[in-house]
Amino acid sequence: MGLSIALIHFPVRNRLGKVVNTAITNFDIHDLARAARTFGVERYYIVAPVESQRDFVRRVMNHWFEGPGAELNITRKEALALVRLVRDINEIAEDLREETGGEPIFVATSARQLPNCIGYEALRRRIDTEPRRAFCLVFGTGYGLDEAVTSEVDLTLGPICGPTDWNHLSVRSAVSIILDRLRGKRE
Amino acid sequence: MGLSIALIHFPVRNRLGKVVNTAITNFDIHDLARAARTFGVERYYIVAPVESQRDFVRRVMNHWFEGPGAELNITRKEALALVRLVRDINEIAEDLREETGGEPIFVATSARQLPNCIGYEALRRRIDTEPRRAFCLVFGTGYGLDEAVTSEVDLTLGPICGPTDWNHLSVRSAVSIILDRLRGKRE
Repeated sequence: MGLSIALIHFPVRNRLGKVVNTAITNFDIHDLARAARTFGVERYYIVAPVESQRDFVRRVMNHWFEGPGAELNITRKEALALVRLVRDINEIAEDLREETGGEPIFVATSARQLPNCIGYEALRRRIDTEPRRAFCLVFGTGYGLDEAVTSEVDLTLGPICGPTDWNHLSVRSAVSIILDRLRGKRE
Repeated sequence: MGLSIALIHFPVRNRLGKVVNTAITNFDIHDLARAARTFGVERYYIVAPVESQRDFVRRVMNHWFEGPGAELNITRKEALALVRLVRDINEIAEDLREETGGEPIFVATSARQLPNCIGYEALRRRIDTEPRRAFCLVFGTGYGLDEAVTSEVDLTLGPICGPTDWNHLSVRSAVSIILDRLRGKRE
């Protein structure tokens, strides 16, 4: 089954540490779908329980599948075809169980070190060597995933670091880099 | 001197292959500045000759340095401090020459294979082993850099590929992945 990604809008933290529901960002829909399509990701789950936000995703999708975008940019449709709109992670688990008949492995990402951390190379090897297993990377919006999510996942990935101790990347950057590390074609 | 990045809004191509000036995208300002800061990039040049577009960058910067953003998010200021607004690549060359006393090396990026291609590992080693030299990665907006740019650079980087033959990444994804490949901390 390979790799899927999930972008969580609830439950995540805001800058004060409070659990909130974030608004869906148009750039997240597009940038993550394009990265997912490039790196052979099976599904891009947008996790959003609020109906007005779900409507926004449907309007964007409609623009590129039926509206003026459909003729303007054919490749965008190919990327957005990976999007699945769901209410919570349970819905993802059910979908992936149905697809594979087995339990999916959820992997949380974070700008901080979390328990049950697996290295990037080790996860790359697991994805390569367990082709029937569904792996799902979980990304938070806002100031990151709430513990209700990170405490329930199977594995976590360490923070992305450069030569500095500063790592306040956008979720768009984080998703792109992590997919490249796990699925990018090596020289 | 290390590594800088440049985001070109003119001359680039539109989807019909015509040379155009693109509008500056707020998300490009932020996402690229945050990636640049994470990966120890020295300067983030926004190349834009049109005055109304340059004003837009100044308004955004002002919001985060002097306006409401300054107190709301301190780290954003640290990232945006890398931004230099310039009219063309010549201005970048002058700035980097002044800084280093030598000629900068410009490296164009593209979704297609271009002449004078250097591998990611080879460029990573050059940056590491030539610390006094200024390297500047050049990224195009729209449908990519015009030949007026790509034919004048010193080196080029190959396209970013995953396990598919589809690679229509956003410039935000491309910048993030390339900086990680060149400057990311290895496990």
